[in-house]
Amino acid sequence: MASKTPIGFIGLGNMGNPMAKNLVKHGYPVIAYDVFPEACKEFQDTGAQIVDSPSDVADKADRIITMLPSSLNAIEAYTGANGILKKVKKGSLLIDSSTIDPAVSKELAKAVEKMGAVFMDAPVSGGVGAARSGNLTFMVGGVEQEFDAAKELLSCMGANVIYCGEVGTGQAAKICNNMLLAISMIGTAETMNLGIRLGLDPKLLAKILNMSSGRCWSSDTYNPVPGVMEGVPSANNYQGGFGTTLMAKDLGLAQDSATNTKTPTPLGSLSHQVYRLMCAKGYAQKDFSSVFQFLREEENL
Amino acid sequence: MASKTPIGFIGLGNMGNPMAKNLVKHGYPVIAYDVFPEACKEFQDTGAQIVDSPSDVADKADRIITMLPSSLNAIEAYTGANGILKKVKKGSLLIDSSTIDPAVSKELAKAVEKMGAVFMDAPVSGGVGAARSGNLTFMVGGVEQEFDAAKELLSCMGANVIYCGEVGTGQAAKICNNMLLAISMIGTAETMNLGIRLGLDPKLLAKILNMSSGRCWSSDTYNPVPGVMEGVPSANNYQGGFGTTLMAKDLGLAQDSATNTKTPTPLGSLSHQVYRLMCAKGYAQKDFSSVFQFLREEENL
Amino acid sequence: MASKTPIGFIGLGNMGNPMAKNLVKHGYPVIAYDVFPEACKEFQDTGAQIVDSPSDVADKADRIITMLPSSLNAIEAYTGANGILKKVKKGSLLIDSSTIDPAVSKELAKAVEKMGAVFMDAPVSGGVGAARSGNLTFMVGGVEQEFDAAKELLSCMGANVIYCGEVGTGQAAKICNNMLLAISMIGTAETMNLGIRLGLDPKLLAKILNMSSGRCWSSDTYNPVPGVMEGVPSANNYQGGFGTTLMAKDLGLAQDSATNTKTPTPLGSLSHQVYRLMCAKGYAQKDFSSVFQFLREEENL
Amino acid sequence: MASKTPIGFIGLGNMGNPMAKNLVKHGYPVIAYDVFPEACKEFQDTGAQIVDSPSDVADKADRIITMLPSSLNAIEAYTGANGILKKVKKGSLLIDSSTIDPAVSKELAKAVEKMGAVFMDAPVSGGVGAARSGNLTFMVGGVEQEFDAAKELLSCMGANVIYCGEVGTGQAAKICNNMLLAISMIGTAETMNLGIRLGLDPKLLAKILNMSSGRCWSSDTYNPVPGVMEGVPSANNYQGGFGTTLMAKDLGLAQDSATNTKTPTPLGSLSHQVYRLMCAKGYAQKDFSSVFQFLREEENL
Repeated sequence: MASKTPIGFIGLGNMGNPMAKNLVKHGYPVIAYDVFPEACKEFQDTGAQIVDSPSDVADKADRIITMLPSSLNAIEAYTGANGILKKVKKGSLLIDSSTIDPAVSKELAKAVEKMGAVFMDAPVSGGVGAARSGNLTFMVGGVEQEFDAAKELLSCMGANVIYCGEVGTGQAAKICNNMLLAISMIGTAETMNLGIRLGLDPKLLAKILNMSSGRCWSSDTYNPVPGVMEGVPSANNYQGGFGTTLMAKDLGLAQDSATNTKTPTPLGSLSHQVYRLMCAKGYAQKDFSSVFQFLREEENL
Repeated sequence: MASKTPIGFIGLGNMGNPMAKNLVKHGYPVIAYDVFPEACKEFQDTGAQIVDSPSDVADKADRIITMLPSSLNAIEAYTGANGILKKVKKGSLLIDSSTIDPAVSKELAKAVEKMGAVFMDAPVSGGVGAARSGNLTFMVGGVEQEFDAAKELLSCMGANVIYCGEVGTGQAAKICNNMLLAISMIGTAETMNLGIRLGLDPKLLAKILNMSSGRCWSSDTYNPVPGVMEGVPSANNYQGGFGTTLMAKDLGLAQDSATNTKTPTPLGSLSHQVYRLMCAKGYAQKDFSSVFQFLREEENL
Repeated sequence: MASKTPIGFIGLGNMGNPMAKNLVKHGYPVIAYDVFPEACKEFQDTGAQIVDSPSDVADKADRIITMLPSSLNAIEAYTGANGILKKVKKGSLLIDSSTIDPAVSKELAKAVEKMGAVFMDAPVSGGVGAARSGNLTFMVGGVEQEFDAAKELLSCMGANVIYCGEVGTGQAAKICNNMLLAISMIGTAETMNLGIRLGLDPKLLAKILNMSSGRCWSSDTYNPVPGVMEGVPSANNYQGGFGTTLMAKDLGLAQDSATNTKTPTPLGSLSHQVYRLMCAKGYAQKDFSSVFQFLREEENL
Repeated sequence: MASKTPIGFIGLGNMGNPMAKNLVKHGYPVIAYDVFPEACKEFQDTGAQIVDSPSDVADKADRIITMLPSSLNAIEAYTGANGILKKVKKGSLLIDSSTIDPAVSKELAKAVEKMGAVFMDAPVSGGVGAARSGNLTFMVGGVEQEFDAAKELLSCMGANVIYCGEVGTGQAAKICNNMLLAISMIGTAETMNLGIRLGLDPKLLAKILNMSSGRCWSSDTYNPVPGVMEGVPSANNYQGGFGTTLMAKDLGLAQDSATNTKTPTPLGSLSHQVYRLMCAKGYAQKDFSSVFQFLREEENL
């Protein structure tokens, strides 16, 4: 174990913190940085070494994982005044697990390549719980020959590591999945609400849908109607799960990608608007299945 | 077998013809009527008795099944000048398998009840193939005590007969399923198209979605992208399957029901519009999964 | 004046009451009926004769105006057990000022014609204020030769009486105008909100739009942003004006008509959904320009 | 006239060429550059001096106008390896008339300020015709004290020069106007189409809308229905005017801005999708009012 070379980790937030801890558990020395000193302090207890900037991380580690909240943060961490690229070593492996615009991933990859290093995008699905238990799914884009090296690290933090193709396709796979998820979740909520108002029992309707062509993950595994299933956010007042505000962010990225590629996405676009409205109406922190609650309210007559 | 009492059957179209034939196969004498003489003639070869009007059917049979293309046709068949209600016997069982507005089903049920007879709505899912092979699914609404009597007949024509609740809920279940189906099909088509333009291989993307939360019947059983699956309409130039024009009709019924019950259905409503547009752009007779083709066309630059 | 023949009036609600009063002011004896006894009582003070049913109105008057809240109410008033058609005289002129589905207007016209009488649809625009001051606009559909007779009566209640074409086109004109109004109002609200968030002064933005191609009635006459104009509902906390719930009703009629005629109306359909949602979120009684308030709320971060 | 100091002009395309020619007509010596040598050659006949790069323009002129097709082109022209900023002089006035993301305008302004120069965004409305005749409208964002200096130049090319506020608000005003324009145009097309199918005469319907609350620029000045007005693209098979592909581009910018500011724009978003679809269906080069044609096609039955 002692012979393992150190791993750099930049971004110790809700997701990054438990991910980096899983690297420590697997015996990797971790060199870490976060813009918030408290996040660094909290992490220091693991025995990790905290440094002052992304460039300092790059100075001490040739395999680095970044987990940041937005495209702008990722650009800053890589290409900023004290960014990774200031001190990156040739042959380094840089893996970005942030969920960002695939076009930005491609830009970062170009900049990294110019320095003789390798960039891969590897966004995750599964939330904080999966990050803690090491059960995340990683969708990985980048040069195929480097995939094994990336998988070695990512397997410490996730149960599934999927190769998706060239740089940017990891992001693409993630935002595609989440766009379809949002569409089918809103669709399920609309459908259940309509059926209930037409006199159907919610459990019976879910059962019928799930044995028919309307079946989807949102109807059979994560049903948004309270009382239909146990152990899902709808059974717990929409606490926990995947927040509406995060879904709205991912749908924004999907729309950016659709606009860039001139791809018509009428339902994806409207789903973005629905989650945008929900954020403004008090649903930002609730699970995204709360769209059922958002739609079900009765008109006051 | 010879002792079976006759069954009336009104509506011998693409669906009604094979359904009524399955009743004959099960040994039921059938008393049949259709507005088109050719449809009657074709059916006569089965040995069925053809009569001149719905009221004549009601004169000779106290169990009647109707299978008609629209709400207006159903209203005419029941309450028209030569409709069933002119000669219906007390205690008769009238089962309407047409796909129509649940509000119309309720109106018909009231009119039937006034004559001392019983009405149930029992729309089907599964297309012409399932009608021929007797594998339809029936969604049945009406008084629960009569369900067994209905099931005895419907089982001759279908593999699944599901009790949904009071009159109208059979229709409700069907249009709910088809609304969610339309939403998830368009969503799958948008998502696959976006992913492909972002550089993902279609088969790989489908695989990722199907092991993730974007999974739905349209992605894992009836994928709309040519080359992803075999034995589905997308593998056969969108021939066969469930026509766009029929989907547009069902979505229109869903919107009528949503408007009547003041239920917001943003995605269901937009899906209706998408299929409406497709009908006008040459996709009316193609399978409804051809929405992928409709969306994928490249801009001419 | 004394020689004027009596006019029947059915429906003495918020709109019908002041309309009928204007007929009285113009010297017409009025024979009136409403399902609510209080409405009748209140109106009796004008000297009008109150009778017990629509058929009694038809018994005493050969020119009748109906002003009812829904298609179902109109059907009942004309074709119900005690409806107008039970006692209508040949050659009578029946004018329906309700806002209902044009397809229902056509059905009523057929039933009226069978009795040898004339039916015209004449829905109004302008609210309670215009009803009181006799400044309504009537959009009239029906046989052109009868238009002058209708105009004579309607001019007592309205400033504009427009002939639109055959039966049903009055309704069509009204729901078309209101659909476009809803679309441009929501569009104006979205645009003003976006501009404000991008740093533009609302008054300046309105001025720029109003001298440009974005100009519309909702931007230049009824701007939905508080502080931009005086004397409009947005300047008075969205009190008064045209209620969201009424707009939602008219948009539902527009969608029924669009579905019946297989007309794609993507924005009209989505506008219906937006007003439907607003009704469920506490905006039902506010002016329809409150969509600006509905959209502007900030996300809680 | 001879004493006028030279003006730099970068981007000699369909719009830039006639704009720069108007500067020449007003007696300004012009220093010009375009990436396409043919565009430079064509412009040289005016007597202008052609140079090799944006930085060379900045070397010879301290007032520069840029007119480029996209955000990326603008970024390159200002901050690229041979960009304006390589040789810009302190106190220079740089005016960007491209239509781009307001967030990019703000970034450029910051970079320009660092060099001690002034940046203003000044996108135009009015097409090639207005560019030729000097009748463009400029919407200008930037420091108010510099507005007079900008106006002096822009007045040579446009009839209206409007001050909108801080940097980026010129872009904001333009994309806001065009978003509302797109919404009301599609709304007008839907409404006219629905009315026609319901039996209304198009000219009469337009007249009714234009005297009512549905009135907008698209209905009263640029009606999309052939035969309603003369001298508009709909009277000329949708030739000329403002192309669908340009509208789709502007709506993409509006969506980028809406996503950045978390502004819900349900109709603006759907309008973007409608124009995106039209581009893929053969309408890219037609005037944007051709959405009427796109929607009107009949279903094949």
